[in-house]
Amino acid sequence: VKIAVVGGGQLGRMLGLAGIPLGCSFRFLDPDPGCPAAAVGETVAGRFDDADALARLVAGCDLATYEFENVPAATAEFLAGRLPTRPGPRSLAIAQDRVAEKRFFAECGVPVQAFAAIDAAGDLDAAAGAVGFPALLKTRRMGYDGKGQRRVGNLAEARAAFADLGGVPCILEAFVPFVREASVIVTRSPRGMATYGPIENEHVGGILRQSRTRDEPFALAAVGHARAIAERLEHVGTLAVEFFVLGDGPDAAVIANEMAPRVHNSGHGTIEGAVTSQFENHLRAIAGLPLGDPAPRGAYGMVNLLGVEPPAEALLALRGVHLHRYGKSPRAGRKLGHATIVAAHDAELDLRLAELRRLVEAARPEAMARPG
Amino acid sequence: VKIAVVGGGQLGRMLGLAGIPLGCSFRFLDPDPGCPAAAVGETVAGRFDDADALARLVAGCDLATYEFENVPAATAEFLAGRLPTRPGPRSLAIAQDRVAEKRFFAECGVPVQAFAAIDAAGDLDAAAGAVGFPALLKTRRMGYDGKGQRRVGNLAEARAAFADLGGVPCILEAFVPFVREASVIVTRSPRGMATYGPIENEHVGGILRQSRTRDEPFALAAVGHARAIAERLEHVGTLAVEFFVLGDGPDAAVIANEMAPRVHNSGHGTIEGAVTSQFENHLRAIAGLPLGDPAPRGAYGMVNLLGVEPPAEALLALRGVHLHRYGKSPRAGRKLGHATIVAAHDAELDLRLAELRRLVEAARPEAMARPG
Repeated sequence: VKIAVVGGGQLGRMLGLAGIPLGCSFRFLDPDPGCPAAAVGETVAGRFDDADALARLVAGCDLATYEFENVPAATAEFLAGRLPTRPGPRSLAIAQDRVAEKRFFAECGVPVQAFAAIDAAGDLDAAAGAVGFPALLKTRRMGYDGKGQRRVGNLAEARAAFADLGGVPCILEAFVPFVREASVIVTRSPRGMATYGPIENEHVGGILRQSRTRDEPFALAAVGHARAIAERLEHVGTLAVEFFVLGDGPDAAVIANEMAPRVHNSGHGTIEGAVTSQFENHLRAIAGLPLGDPAPRGAYGMVNLLGVEPPAEALLALRGVHLHRYGKSPRAGRKLGHATIVAAHDAELDLRLAELRRLVEAARPEAMARPG
Repeated sequence: VKIAVVGGGQLGRMLGLAGIPLGCSFRFLDPDPGCPAAAVGETVAGRFDDADALARLVAGCDLATYEFENVPAATAEFLAGRLPTRPGPRSLAIAQDRVAEKRFFAECGVPVQAFAAIDAAGDLDAAAGAVGFPALLKTRRMGYDGKGQRRVGNLAEARAAFADLGGVPCILEAFVPFVREASVIVTRSPRGMATYGPIENEHVGGILRQSRTRDEPFALAAVGHARAIAERLEHVGTLAVEFFVLGDGPDAAVIANEMAPRVHNSGHGTIEGAVTSQFENHLRAIAGLPLGDPAPRGAYGMVNLLGVEPPAEALLALRGVHLHRYGKSPRAGRKLGHATIVAAHDAELDLRLAELRRLVEAARPEAMARPG
């Protein structure tokens, strides 16, 4: 099976590493011919809306997929007109629009915070009444890693933020005093679903720093929400749903914050930590093969290497650490790789992740100060 | 780190898959530009003794290694003169010569069967006296997968076999009524050793069909022998030692049969079955990085896909099965891939491997009849 992939970043690289043993081959479309995925397949250098490049991408391929959700609609249409393209356009369209996404979650019976669409400055008055303050004003489209959003404490700040974001369509969301963030990853195919998590996520400056599985009282609820979303989307492939955790202890509950209709950074630990990784299951799903067992092989976690990589020598000296480098040149805050650990249980994972974190953070004092 | 690899078969492919996450890149020398390793690195098409191809192989690389042991001596010298080449020439030289290998095992204090060097037909008389019959007459060099050997029951048969093998230097080995075959895999670096196994191996027609870990009474002895061999060789990288198991139950003992100074088919289960695979540890060793934990993550086993591949659909429907396809065109008896299982313990592995074996063997009735 030859697979056309829109995007050639680290997610594409890990899809390739998972797919080569299955007998898949890959062609990646990416503006950078030296992108991380170039190590595991052919590349077509071009923008994601370049018609010539898209034609070269699909030629001779059997299937199309993508490794990021901001695929232009025209590109998604082009692909779907030429190849079986999975996930389908509905998953993309909803994930690209924060308002559609929140409405969709609500339709699925999944709790979300109060929100309102802001298409023009005049919408802010009514929205403020419905949503309250403090709130977050976010662009409806093209946000990622915390970009395109502002925290606002009152109507005047909301107006200023709307202007500052360029007056593009936005969403006003109630600010949620969450205590933690968590995700659930689902791979769905018409034949069934495989789920991973909940995975607890720690962001700094909007960028994921650490993810780890943890036994949580809301596990069944969160997994149920993610399955409901995947099912109603008729999603084929891997999908991540990110949750805010409200409250602590046995009363903790979740609301859905956003989804990514693709393999996800918070699931990188599944490579070593699950019987079948999110990457392999994505490929099995889109190729129509039976899904693999997503069961955890222990408590698993991963730490992103942001901006600076500690010496491999030091990382690999830690027992059971696996290193995943993406082949990128360093730049402040850039995701250059990640390191994973699988432990027997949560308490052991706590200790070993803390040790890994110390090593990773010692390498990047100045990269930590300026994420972005 | 850019690594030049002599040979681009499935072992090279799996080295590449293990090394890309570590940030390694690869260039493979192989007669076939479409070799299995082409999916994970550059290839140089050429024979293993082609000086031009060798020059292109090493240009710009930092390290050299190989994925098969029959590297011509001149090639090994060329590499070692240009790049740090690991394992070193001593491991290759000894592994290429069955007589040197047996003598070396004995020097290491590792038990071997009776044997004698046969450089000319005239040596057979004295050798027969020392070794006895039945015996195996094997070429000293270039044997693999059971090729280049004859079973002989008396002196006349030995003479005929020697002529039939072309009168090249041979070894006469006492035939050992072994009950099983087992291997131990060691990765050695100057900083330490990691060991895998014992792994029980089943050959049919000289070709490995199945490998699986098993708790064995001779485990400590076999691991000790393999470590002694790796240490005395000053081997850097992964090394497999194959043993014959004599007797059964608590009295079972091992003698060393041969070694392969490289990653080994019997260790393929380590990809999913060990914390760190034989492939990753080979790369860590040759790159001077700390070795990873080789501890088993359960009882693990693998079945080779010989000549015919069962439908991926059927294999992947078995719980916890991982498929490793090599990207080769089918041919009777050819190693096209393998499938692995990790189970909680030996008894579960027995059941699940048997199920996998039934599926694999149902796909290849006629390939089984003509291995080779």
